[in-house]
Amino acid sequence: MAFSQRHLLDIESLSRRDIVTVLDLAERFKEISERPIKRVPTLRGKTVVNLFMEPSTRTRSSFEVAEKRLSADALNFSASSSATTKGETLLDTVRNLQAMVPDIIVIRHRFAGSPHFISQHVEASVINAGDGTHSHPTQALLDCATIRQHKHEIGGLDVAIVGDIAHSRVARSNIQALNIMGANVRVAGPLTMMPLGVEKLGVRVCRSLAEAIEGVDVVMMLRIQAERQGGQCLFPSLREYAQTFGLNNRVLQLTKPDAIVMHPGPINRGVEMDPEVADGPRSVILQQVTYGVAVRMAVLYLLAGSPPVEG
Amino acid sequence: MAFSQRHLLDIESLSRRDIVTVLDLAERFKEISERPIKRVPTLRGKTVVNLFMEPSTRTRSSFEVAEKRLSADALNFSASSSATTKGETLLDTVRNLQAMVPDIIVIRHRFAGSPHFISQHVEASVINAGDGTHSHPTQALLDCATIRQHKHEIGGLDVAIVGDIAHSRVARSNIQALNIMGANVRVAGPLTMMPLGVEKLGVRVCRSLAEAIEGVDVVMMLRIQAERQGGQCLFPSLREYAQTFGLNNRVLQLTKPDAIVMHPGPINRGVEMDPEVADGPRSVILQQVTYGVAVRMAVLYLLAGSPPVEG
Amino acid sequence: MAFSQRHLLDIESLSRRDIVTVLDLAERFKEISERPIKRVPTLRGKTVVNLFMEPSTRTRSSFEVAEKRLSADALNFSASSSATTKGETLLDTVRNLQAMVPDIIVIRHRFAGSPHFISQHVEASVINAGDGTHSHPTQALLDCATIRQHKHEIGGLDVAIVGDIAHSRVARSNIQALNIMGANVRVAGPLTMMPLGVEKLGVRVCRSLAEAIEGVDVVMMLRIQAERQGGQCLFPSLREYAQTFGLNNRVLQLTKPDAIVMHPGPINRGVEMDPEVADGPRSVILQQVTYGVAVRMAVLYLLAGSPPVEG
Repeated sequence: MAFSQRHLLDIESLSRRDIVTVLDLAERFKEISERPIKRVPTLRGKTVVNLFMEPSTRTRSSFEVAEKRLSADALNFSASSSATTKGETLLDTVRNLQAMVPDIIVIRHRFAGSPHFISQHVEASVINAGDGTHSHPTQALLDCATIRQHKHEIGGLDVAIVGDIAHSRVARSNIQALNIMGANVRVAGPLTMMPLGVEKLGVRVCRSLAEAIEGVDVVMMLRIQAERQGGQCLFPSLREYAQTFGLNNRVLQLTKPDAIVMHPGPINRGVEMDPEVADGPRSVILQQVTYGVAVRMAVLYLLAGSPPVEG
Repeated sequence: MAFSQRHLLDIESLSRRDIVTVLDLAERFKEISERPIKRVPTLRGKTVVNLFMEPSTRTRSSFEVAEKRLSADALNFSASSSATTKGETLLDTVRNLQAMVPDIIVIRHRFAGSPHFISQHVEASVINAGDGTHSHPTQALLDCATIRQHKHEIGGLDVAIVGDIAHSRVARSNIQALNIMGANVRVAGPLTMMPLGVEKLGVRVCRSLAEAIEGVDVVMMLRIQAERQGGQCLFPSLREYAQTFGLNNRVLQLTKPDAIVMHPGPINRGVEMDPEVADGPRSVILQQVTYGVAVRMAVLYLLAGSPPVEG
Repeated sequence: MAFSQRHLLDIESLSRRDIVTVLDLAERFKEISERPIKRVPTLRGKTVVNLFMEPSTRTRSSFEVAEKRLSADALNFSASSSATTKGETLLDTVRNLQAMVPDIIVIRHRFAGSPHFISQHVEASVINAGDGTHSHPTQALLDCATIRQHKHEIGGLDVAIVGDIAHSRVARSNIQALNIMGANVRVAGPLTMMPLGVEKLGVRVCRSLAEAIEGVDVVMMLRIQAERQGGQCLFPSLREYAQTFGLNNRVLQLTKPDAIVMHPGPINRGVEMDPEVADGPRSVILQQVTYGVAVRMAVLYLLAGSPPVEG
């Protein structure tokens, strides 16, 4: 397996070959979830700690399903159950976990850089499951897997990412992954949601939804995350947002005829996306979820799996 | 195995033969919990999602024990951990779960009909673990299993169900199951807790506790559930309720001498039942709990188990 | 295996031989956590209930890791998820759990004596994971295991325990275990944190930190637990506490040159211990965590394991 990393902390550390390795392996692991017996002994006797210091359902459960299908022993921590409520530092929490000799620590944390920080203090492999507005690498990898399934080749595709670019780790990681894979990325969203110097990320900044999605192969709609906007409102109203940047079937006609529509979930129906689109024939949203499990199985395997000769 | 259903949504969809199939199988699975090694590989590699959108301890843990004894991979969701707190619809939550390819979804939800609704949108088998005031089929099946163990034959028995009939899914499901199995059911409770047209359910409505339990083989006491009564108080005081409809040893003498006493738990000691009865020789309350695991193992097996030839 | 107990409720019930049996076995189980495949089938098919009625991260997760490495089926209950919130008594909760036929119940509860109480009403073996200010036997055993690793022999060592002796189940259990093993124990702490008649526990009461740790082989610092002090403040300020009873490198020079420093965690850095000590070469705090898993594996095995001939 050609994977250069001991941790999965972000996308920018990955090579094109790393990403392809994950995507290829994910295809094989996806097949396991289609079997009557959805479990392989690959990670038997490995301990995976799921340390979710921010609320999460779909990412946490996706990891948990992936771990169980690989026969790993999963241990779940949440912010509320953690000793950080007793004033313990994150580093002490993590050192304590390390003393129980886990093989992998999956961490979600509201502070950007937390996974990098702890990776320097533990022997376990660290997987970033989302840190602040910084990175969400497994999301970008599952999105790439979904795109590749439908478009066969990511290189050369036109991809629009629409919404709160400034506060979205999903956007950041996808821009990086799509660039590495050779896609052309456009972004659009309210000015208040566009990071300064966003062009340097290697994207084309569009002034309208129409401009962003015209002729694209892939439309990636972001979730409006009121909880990550620091209390102040970044747009006049949900209704105006929906009218300006919401995706409906009429606007969708601007894309290539076979364009696919993606969303990291959970969807605010009627805000960033109309139900007719979310549930329509172009939507691959649920396939993203399916690839979520497969990609996480691939990453877990690459970081902790026994070499094939031993397995 | 003669089981006609792909889901277990309610009791009224079951035939007498379905019920007998579950009860017979439960006897065999009950024996597994008595072994030194309480685990069989029957559901190895099957994924069971426990989606409990209402607080629950005993039903959730009973399912979880059943799943583990069958070697299934269990994944737990609660309302607080679910993305519904981010405004996601139940249907989106369930579709997302489906995309992870579970074999069974066990759901408890405060809205009557939720399990039916989701069963129409997923490929997984759905088990209703309690929906509003509508149905709680595994509770009725475990109650039948407990009755059958003590009385051998359910048909022809006289059974009294006492308490808040109107708001109890336990009562509704038991009335249906006992009718299907040929028992004669009487109900009693405060007028404010008696549903309109309750006679149509196929029960005899009694005016007093004494009338309800006189000469019966089985007394089933319901829990007073203040949380399910919509805020308004349906009886003057707990003390008055206990004096009018609470079961004590003196009143219990009205039943057949070998009558058994049941309660779905948790008991309000001193309200619907005196400790002397709850802990007395007639009480089969803890055997209900034991059958809870066995019946749920049977249901899980019937919905997801490999045919015997493969197992 | 020479272990005289059916439960592990406290330290005072154990003989020296019982303790040595646990420590010896822990050494063997510790080795399992160092293997690539950290799982043995020892408790396969055994059900362990973790009933944590007080918040806990490290003890709960340590038990959970231990259970999984032994292949037991672990079932987790917390106070908030338990039916005690519906007014159920602890005894009813435990009887209900017993009806699901667990092999072991691990319980943490704020009331001293709860584990003893429930051990009289269940067939499962009961492990006390901390009850009020009474006892925390697995903590004392893991501390003994850590000391023995560094000092080879516990008998004859001088050990100082410093902090809130009156409210610490860790202190109580360690005093008992160290006495049984033949160590000489000194205690120190604010007068308000010293229990009446503490001398009867078989310890030397010291008036100052300096007196307590002078020439000792082991320093055991306790956590300042504001939550266990009944609301009233037992010392003028955290700052004064740190100055009087906090351990820093300067004070640490009073011990034997090879003395080790212990703490049950989580540490209040800068209060009972300076970071330079916590992270220094004398600190064995993280080894305590590692032995936590090993000792709990040993105890679980001794209470529920199949005899070697069957395994």
